[in-house]
Amino acid sequence: MSDRAPASAGRLLVTGCDVLRVPPEGECEILQARDIVVADGVIQDVRPTQDVRPTGTVAHVRPDVIDRSDVIDGRGLLAVPGLINAHTHSPMVLMRGAAEDVTVEGWFNDRVWPMESNLTAADVRTGARLACAEMIRSGVTTFADHYFFPEQIAEAVAETGLRADIAPTYFSSRGQEALESTVRFAEEWHGGAEGRVTVSLGPHAPYTVDDTDLRTLAGHARRLGVRTHIHAAEHLEQTRSSLERRGITPIRVLHETGVLDAGALIAHGCGIVEDDLPLLAGHADTTAVAYCPKVYLKHALSPLTPVRDLLAAGVTVAVGTDGAAGHNTLDVWEALRLVALTQKQAVRDATWMTVSDTLRLALRGGARALGLQDRIGALEPGMRADIVLTDLSGAHCRPLHDPRAALVYSARAGDVRTVVVDGRVLMCDGRLLTVDEPTLLDEADARVARILDTSHGRAVQHYDP
Amino acid sequence: MSDRAPASAGRLLVTGCDVLRVPPEGECEILQARDIVVADGVIQDVRPTQDVRPTGTVAHVRPDVIDRSDVIDGRGLLAVPGLINAHTHSPMVLMRGAAEDVTVEGWFNDRVWPMESNLTAADVRTGARLACAEMIRSGVTTFADHYFFPEQIAEAVAETGLRADIAPTYFSSRGQEALESTVRFAEEWHGGAEGRVTVSLGPHAPYTVDDTDLRTLAGHARRLGVRTHIHAAEHLEQTRSSLERRGITPIRVLHETGVLDAGALIAHGCGIVEDDLPLLAGHADTTAVAYCPKVYLKHALSPLTPVRDLLAAGVTVAVGTDGAAGHNTLDVWEALRLVALTQKQAVRDATWMTVSDTLRLALRGGARALGLQDRIGALEPGMRADIVLTDLSGAHCRPLHDPRAALVYSARAGDVRTVVVDGRVLMCDGRLLTVDEPTLLDEADARVARILDTSHGRAVQHYDP
Repeated sequence: MSDRAPASAGRLLVTGCDVLRVPPEGECEILQARDIVVADGVIQDVRPTQDVRPTGTVAHVRPDVIDRSDVIDGRGLLAVPGLINAHTHSPMVLMRGAAEDVTVEGWFNDRVWPMESNLTAADVRTGARLACAEMIRSGVTTFADHYFFPEQIAEAVAETGLRADIAPTYFSSRGQEALESTVRFAEEWHGGAEGRVTVSLGPHAPYTVDDTDLRTLAGHARRLGVRTHIHAAEHLEQTRSSLERRGITPIRVLHETGVLDAGALIAHGCGIVEDDLPLLAGHADTTAVAYCPKVYLKHALSPLTPVRDLLAAGVTVAVGTDGAAGHNTLDVWEALRLVALTQKQAVRDATWMTVSDTLRLALRGGARALGLQDRIGALEPGMRADIVLTDLSGAHCRPLHDPRAALVYSARAGDVRTVVVDGRVLMCDGRLLTVDEPTLLDEADARVARILDTSHGRAVQHYDP
Repeated sequence: MSDRAPASAGRLLVTGCDVLRVPPEGECEILQARDIVVADGVIQDVRPTQDVRPTGTVAHVRPDVIDRSDVIDGRGLLAVPGLINAHTHSPMVLMRGAAEDVTVEGWFNDRVWPMESNLTAADVRTGARLACAEMIRSGVTTFADHYFFPEQIAEAVAETGLRADIAPTYFSSRGQEALESTVRFAEEWHGGAEGRVTVSLGPHAPYTVDDTDLRTLAGHARRLGVRTHIHAAEHLEQTRSSLERRGITPIRVLHETGVLDAGALIAHGCGIVEDDLPLLAGHADTTAVAYCPKVYLKHALSPLTPVRDLLAAGVTVAVGTDGAAGHNTLDVWEALRLVALTQKQAVRDATWMTVSDTLRLALRGGARALGLQDRIGALEPGMRADIVLTDLSGAHCRPLHDPRAALVYSARAGDVRTVVVDGRVLMCDGRLLTVDEPTLLDEADARVARILDTSHGRAVQHYDP
């Protein structure tokens, strides 16, 4: 926990910034020279900027607007909606760079699942906080997490001020008590941290959770009004294996066990086939697919998620990083750039997945994927104030003909200057306000040797989809 | 030109840094706690660090070593060989973000070639300097350029202290005088700027330069002892078109016109086919292919350059960004990451293009591609002192299990702190010493509207390969 007090969550005024507008369809726009007025964590207005004195203090603003407010000088910066990481395993930052140049099977069975058997609640506590620090620095304000010791992640989110949907990872091999504990986590934490934490149930995948457990969890999801976050059809071989072993695709398993009906965030879906599309489309209002292209390339997967077919069928697609043991960063800028690049190539159409469509997929798609489209994903009155101020004045973005293209193809996480979540300032001009980063980095370093030791031969699970 | 004096190119001592060692084959290594001793632009020694006082001043070092030397405190930083951008069109930073979401044909005929008809020598002068600033900031110390007004680029390189191989772009449509002028440029500038500028001849491509001109230029290249830098077999359709129109592949055109025999740096090569491999292998000591994956994905090309086949045939492969009108940055970190990601997927082998092989391709491959393997690409005694100090202490690289993996998969251009070329410090802890960046950015902005105006309907060339 930081020794520095977090900024107030009362009133906030961001003055003189440009604002990225991401409409539900059509071209994104840059609204120039705006003030963003925030009260009680909600955007009240995005209006042409008022006269601002050169010192940065605000003049000619009605006193009731600036009463108790923090004022952020946004001149020269572009405000974008906070980025959304629609699929990750945040504490896996502890294993960043520790599973390189291996097959998918080797990644699971020789590296990651053995390492994960070493993890303690305290490790996850540190890993989740480190992940939050990295995400705040890169302008990610919301993440959909899927991991063990979920209460540690929820505490990290509560403390650092981020927003997250947290799914407790469950394997059937863990037994009934583990299943009940994931349900209790949902009961305790859904709507927690002043509404910034939501919960999804987290059966790992159709190949590690049996149909009975999927049905039970889908029933709990419906009862609790939460969704399920699950890996499915991660690549085409898994779909083929499912067809061979049981005659139906992984997506149909989710359909038949009621998981789709209760609402599902499906990670990856590179193995989604044509027959799956109507099943997903039938639940398009509560079902989404998180696309994490960097890890698919790194794991040499082909084909990639059929994003164009999914969007054409009305299914929401969002962008995620997956865990840092595969993606190496939690950088959604990197991920959304790869959305555009990989999808243009995948469908052999350079005019598709345009700059505007990529930003829309990452922002509005991300919000819908988490069921939060009424709260986040756009800087508009009535939305929660999750605001990222980016500085596109660096040489690598100049001349700045088109800030939208710069966001997709030139900008870097390091261009993020200031981050606001729910109206609270989490980073101000590169300074983290809710994380004691040096102490946290030392804590993480101290845990490394033990976590990386796989000489014991244990694993949390065996991969054999 | 900067109003700040460049640092001395005499003696230089970098103390206490870790050093990336990239061997000709096998795993890369991290040498811990070294001093890099530089004199007259050349690395004299990379030795275990001497006692360094906490203040950063050096003690117990022989006086003759520190005489007249600049001392850089490298503690906590990783020294890597300066990155090499093996194919770019540096002044095209002026068109960054101005040609998005279009087909290859539209990119050339509707956007880039019309915009290029607006360019003046003064535009190129500004664009090249801006590109140099961006490259210095991101740790690129050498680039292979291909553009108009090459003397402006050479002046920018001389002034900013970078290293470059510059090819003057030539189309046959420009006529005999233009051809002779490119040869004169080679005669005047090869070996210029204290040896930091080398020249290649720059026929644009086999589809824009006729065989007679290719033969003439190959003859000049042999006479002058320089190579040819040329676009060829950019994608498979070009190869097919060449086979249809004249019965041979673009690579065979280079073979038959003597271009390969004189030595060639071939940009792209996504359309290199099996029959081309023996032709390239026959000139493997002086021929290389520059792979620029971001633009291939963005232009929806498939297949990609057959990197595995080329390497297996003994042909050098290096990494480039291409121009910023396609790549949007000149960021070689981004490019080398995409080398690993795209090549693993292209050959469906996650264990291939390892972290070590990717670094080797970018560094040793880059040096060989420019014929500079005896001067750059490694931090070893006898090599020119092109040194980049990177800071991998940020949250996005931590814990730092494996700095080599961090360089390929986590690090960002913004992690570069200090850049040395030929023993001269060009950037010190993020401060550019040879570029007046604010003035330069203003100059670039002032040129934008005129350069982007394509209402005149002119173009430097028509694309119809």
